[in-house]
Amino acid sequence: MIRLQLQLELSYTVLAPGAEFFFFFHAANTSHQRVIDENLVISQPDAAWQLQESDCMGQRCLRLGAQPGPLTVRYTAGVEMRHHVADPAQIPEVPVCDIPHDVLQYIYPSRYCQSDRLYNFAGGLFGGLPRGYSRAKAICDWVGQHVTFRSNSSDGTTSAVDTLIERVGVCRDFAHLMIALCRAVNMPARFVTGTDFGADPKMGPPDFHAYVEVYLGGRWYLFDPSRTAIPMGMMRMATGRDAADVAFATIFGSVYSDQPRILVVAGEDAEAGWEFPEHTDQAVSTA
Amino acid sequence: MIRLQLQLELSYTVLAPGAEFFFFFHAANTSHQRVIDENLVISQPDAAWQLQESDCMGQRCLRLGAQPGPLTVRYTAGVEMRHHVADPAQIPEVPVCDIPHDVLQYIYPSRYCQSDRLYNFAGGLFGGLPRGYSRAKAICDWVGQHVTFRSNSSDGTTSAVDTLIERVGVCRDFAHLMIALCRAVNMPARFVTGTDFGADPKMGPPDFHAYVEVYLGGRWYLFDPSRTAIPMGMMRMATGRDAADVAFATIFGSVYSDQPRILVVAGEDAEAGWEFPEHTDQAVSTA
Amino acid sequence: MIRLQLQLELSYTVLAPGAEFFFFFHAANTSHQRVIDENLVISQPDAAWQLQESDCMGQRCLRLGAQPGPLTVRYTAGVEMRHHVADPAQIPEVPVCDIPHDVLQYIYPSRYCQSDRLYNFAGGLFGGLPRGYSRAKAICDWVGQHVTFRSNSSDGTTSAVDTLIERVGVCRDFAHLMIALCRAVNMPARFVTGTDFGADPKMGPPDFHAYVEVYLGGRWYLFDPSRTAIPMGMMRMATGRDAADVAFATIFGSVYSDQPRILVVAGEDAEAGWEFPEHTDQAVSTA
Amino acid sequence: MIRLQLQLELSYTVLAPGAEFFFFFHAANTSHQRVIDENLVISQPDAAWQLQESDCMGQRCLRLGAQPGPLTVRYTAGVEMRHHVADPAQIPEVPVCDIPHDVLQYIYPSRYCQSDRLYNFAGGLFGGLPRGYSRAKAICDWVGQHVTFRSNSSDGTTSAVDTLIERVGVCRDFAHLMIALCRAVNMPARFVTGTDFGADPKMGPPDFHAYVEVYLGGRWYLFDPSRTAIPMGMMRMATGRDAADVAFATIFGSVYSDQPRILVVAGEDAEAGWEFPEHTDQAVSTA
Repeated sequence: MIRLQLQLELSYTVLAPGAEFFFFFHAANTSHQRVIDENLVISQPDAAWQLQESDCMGQRCLRLGAQPGPLTVRYTAGVEMRHHVADPAQIPEVPVCDIPHDVLQYIYPSRYCQSDRLYNFAGGLFGGLPRGYSRAKAICDWVGQHVTFRSNSSDGTTSAVDTLIERVGVCRDFAHLMIALCRAVNMPARFVTGTDFGADPKMGPPDFHAYVEVYLGGRWYLFDPSRTAIPMGMMRMATGRDAADVAFATIFGSVYSDQPRILVVAGEDAEAGWEFPEHTDQAVSTA
Repeated sequence: MIRLQLQLELSYTVLAPGAEFFFFFHAANTSHQRVIDENLVISQPDAAWQLQESDCMGQRCLRLGAQPGPLTVRYTAGVEMRHHVADPAQIPEVPVCDIPHDVLQYIYPSRYCQSDRLYNFAGGLFGGLPRGYSRAKAICDWVGQHVTFRSNSSDGTTSAVDTLIERVGVCRDFAHLMIALCRAVNMPARFVTGTDFGADPKMGPPDFHAYVEVYLGGRWYLFDPSRTAIPMGMMRMATGRDAADVAFATIFGSVYSDQPRILVVAGEDAEAGWEFPEHTDQAVSTA
Repeated sequence: MIRLQLQLELSYTVLAPGAEFFFFFHAANTSHQRVIDENLVISQPDAAWQLQESDCMGQRCLRLGAQPGPLTVRYTAGVEMRHHVADPAQIPEVPVCDIPHDVLQYIYPSRYCQSDRLYNFAGGLFGGLPRGYSRAKAICDWVGQHVTFRSNSSDGTTSAVDTLIERVGVCRDFAHLMIALCRAVNMPARFVTGTDFGADPKMGPPDFHAYVEVYLGGRWYLFDPSRTAIPMGMMRMATGRDAADVAFATIFGSVYSDQPRILVVAGEDAEAGWEFPEHTDQAVSTA
Repeated sequence: MIRLQLQLELSYTVLAPGAEFFFFFHAANTSHQRVIDENLVISQPDAAWQLQESDCMGQRCLRLGAQPGPLTVRYTAGVEMRHHVADPAQIPEVPVCDIPHDVLQYIYPSRYCQSDRLYNFAGGLFGGLPRGYSRAKAICDWVGQHVTFRSNSSDGTTSAVDTLIERVGVCRDFAHLMIALCRAVNMPARFVTGTDFGADPKMGPPDFHAYVEVYLGGRWYLFDPSRTAIPMGMMRMATGRDAADVAFATIFGSVYSDQPRILVVAGEDAEAGWEFPEHTDQAVSTA
C-alpha cells in the first residue's frame, strides 16, 4: 500500500464580478485509491461553491463563483493506493468487437488527439507488433524517445499532431500523442491528471501531471510517456478523453492566476505496511 | 404529431476477414420520438451482431462482424414524433454555474469543434448579444449566411476551424462550426445525426443529415445551420460531442462502400392526427 | 523630406563554435529612401562578416560568423526619405493580366500567408468592392478592426490562418493576414520590415516593425494594418514574400539572444526642409 | 545525350468573360536542356497571349486571356538534354555561410514546405549523418519509404506537415516533404515541375511530375522522392520554392478543366548519340 499526502494552494486575483471556476484537483476515489482525509479552505467567505461527483469515475468537480479580489484555494488530502499489479506478458488487447460500450468513446478522436489523421503513421510503426500490453508499452516508449521535454514549449491549443511534427512538449503533450497513437491502432486510451511524484527537482517545483491509461485485458493500465514521474506515486485526480475534459482549472471571467503550489509526500512506515513508490517493470492499474 | 417512415439500405463489399462495423442508424427513442415498428435485415446469415443502447440518450449502436463478400444491411423504422414547441422569446440561456454536470462536456472543445481557438472571434461577434435562444439563433443564421453548401467540398478530417477559414462545406461542417461558436460563448451545444427530410431534390437523393442542439432553458433545442432540411421532419438517430462520436458507420477493416440509399416519408392523415412537417419560427426540441 | 536617425544594438551570447547570423537590419536604399551615413560596429574583432546587397530591392543582408562568447552588434544610420504621395481616389488596381512578371510572386501564397485557403472568405468580404486603392485600404482597416494587438500572443509559426481564427497578434501577424487577404483577391502584396516610429510608448520600447506594401497603379503603396506606427516615419529595412524571407535575424547555431535596443529620431529643421512624420490620408509609397 | 519529344493538350471550357491563365508548361532552356523545336497552338484565334521568360531560370510563363467557350491549348517540343553526372561520394554540402545570395531563399520555409516546424524532427533523423550528397539521398529515401503514393489522396492545400502526419500523397506531396526536411537541416532545396517519363502505366496515363533539386557542391542535383519516374527522362518545365510558384496552370475566372493529355517519347538513335533514359546511381543535374 502507498500512502500519499497532498498539499495544494491555488492563488488568483479576480478582476471582475461573475467569475466562475471549475476545478478538478480533488483526489479521486476509485477501487484502488481511497481518500482517507481531506480539507478544503476557500479564502473568500462568501464564495458560492459546490462539489459534484461524476457517476462512474470517482472524480469530483469543484465549481466556485468568486468575488473580485484575491482568492486562495487550499486543499489537502491523504490517500491510500493499492495498485493492481500484473505481469505485462499476460495482458492481452481487447478486440474492437469486445470493447465495452462505455469504453468506446476512448477509441474515437478528440480535440487534442486526432487519431483519425494518424492511421497510416501508427499502423506503419505499430500495426505489425504483437498484440498486448507490450504494444501499448512500445507506443509509450516511442513517444518518450522521440519527443523532448521542454517547459513552456507548448500552449493550450497544442495537439498530438503538433507534437508529432515539432517533437517537443510538456507532460500533457506526451500524453496526447500517446493517446492519439493508441487510438489510431484501435486501443482505447484516455487522459489522466494527477501529481508528478518523483519528478526531478531540476525540472522545477512539484506540479500537476498528465499521463495515460490504456484499456487492456479488461482494465485500465497506467503509462507515463513523459517519464517524468514515478507511476506508483501519481495520485489520480481526474480522467477524460483529453485535456479538454479535465483541465485542473477552467476559468470563466477575468482572472489573474499565480503559479499553483503543490506538495506531495509519500508516507514510509513499514509497520503500517506503507511502501515508498518505486519504478517497476510490472503493469500497474488504479482504475 | 408527426409520423415518419424510414427505409435505409447500406451496401458494402468486405474485402478481408475480420471486418467490424459500428453503426448509428437506428431511430432513437427519446421522450419526444418513439419507434413504433422497425425491422433489420442483414444479408450475411452468419454475421455476428449485437445492438447496444446507450444509457441516457436513447440511441443504439449496432455492432456487426462480417465475412468477406457482399454485405447489405436494410433497416426500416416507423416513428412518431411529438416535438416540444416553445416561444423563442421565452427561452433563456443557462448560466455557466447552473449547467448540469452531465451537460458540461458539451461546452468543452472536441475533435472537430475547437471552441478554445474561437473565444475572441465568437466573443466579438456574439458576445454582446442579448442572452437567450435568440443568440443561438444568431449564431445559426451567421453560419448559414457565411458558409456555402457544396457537396464533396470537405472530408473526414475537416473541422470547424477549417470551415471558418474556407467558408464551404456540407451539413456536418455547418454543424461543427455552429457548435464550436456556441461553446466559445459558453453555450452547451452538441451534434445530432438523422435524415434530411425536406431537402431540395436538386441537391441529390435523400441522405443522412447532421444538425445541432443547444442547451437552453434546461432543454436541448434543435438548429439546422445548413438550412437544408425541415427541422420538424428530421428523425433523430444519434447524439454526440461531434461527428467523431456518432458517425453513421465506423468501419474497421478492408471494406468497399457503396452510396447509402435512404428514403423518409411523412405520413399525412388528419384523422389520425398526423401533421406534415413544416418550417416553423417556434423553438423546437426533441430531447 | 523626412530625416531619420537610427541607433540599433543587438546583444547575443554565442554558446558554441560555428554560429552564423543572417541579419536584415540595414536601412534600405530605394528611389525614395537614401542612406546618408551609417556605421556598423561588431564587438568580436575576429568575426567574419560580409554585407550582400540584393539586386533590385536595395536591401542588404549582413552575414556574420561569430565566436563563442558575448557578441554585440551596433548599427547607426541616417536616412532621408522623400515619399511618393498620391491621391487615393486616383490609384487603380492592376488587372491580373498586367501584373509585371517580377511582381507575380506576390500574388502567390507563401509560408505565413495562405491566400489559397481564403478565396471564399476574402471574395465574400472584399470581392464586391470597387477596384482601386480603396479596396486595399478596406482590407487594411478590416484587419485593424478585427484583430487585437497583444504582445507575445503569437510565435514564429503563427500564420495568417491562425490570426484569422484567433483574432489576436503582433504587427507581424496583422501584416501576414492583410497580405493573405490581398492576394486572395489577386492584389499583389508583400511584407516589409522597418522600425515602428511613432508607436505608443505604453506598448513598450521602440521596436522593429512589420507592415505591408500593395502593388497598385504600377507602384508599391504602404499600409500599416496594426496601426501602431506612423507610416511616414517607418524606415525600410527589407522586403519579402513574408516573414520567412526577411527576419531581422536568422540564427544558425546555439545562441542566447537579449532584447534588441532600438532608437529612431526624426530630425526637425524647417530651414533644411525636414518635416516631422505625421499621419496622412494620402497614399504613400517608398518603393 | 537524351532526346525527348513532348506532346501536350490542355482542354478547358471558359464559362464567363475575363478568364486569365498563367501556364508553366513550356520546356525550360537551361545549360543542360535545350529546346530544339516547339510549337504552340491556341484554339481561340482572338485569345490574347504572351510568353514571358524569367531572368535566370530559363523557364517561361504563358499568360493567356480567353473568351467564353471551349479552349484547347496544344504544345509540342523537342528537347536535348545533356545531364551533368557526378560521383555522389564526391559531392559536398555547402555550409550555410557559403550559400550564394540568390540560393538563400531556398532554405527558408514556404507555403507548402514549413521547414521551421521540422527542425527537431529533421535534426533527430538526419542531423547526425555525414554531410554531403548522401544526406540528401537519405532524406529522399526516407520520404519514399515512409509515404505511400495514392492518386487523389491530397488536394491543393496539402502541405509537407500534412504529408508527414498522414503519410500518403502524390508526387507533389513527396516533393514538398523532402524539400521541407532538407531546408530544416539547412540544405537549400527547391521544387521542379516536368513530366513523369518512365512512370508505371498502371498508375495511369503520362502526367505532369513534381520533383526536387538540392543545392550541393555548388550545383542543383535532382531527386525524385516519389520514385515514380526515371530522373534522366524528366523534362524540366519550371522551378520554384514550392508548388505555389509553378503550378502548371493557374486559372483566374470561371473555367471548367478537362484532364490534360501528355505524351513524352524518348528518341533512340545510337548514331545520333541519343541514349535512352535509364535509372542511375550517379548524381544527376540539369541546372
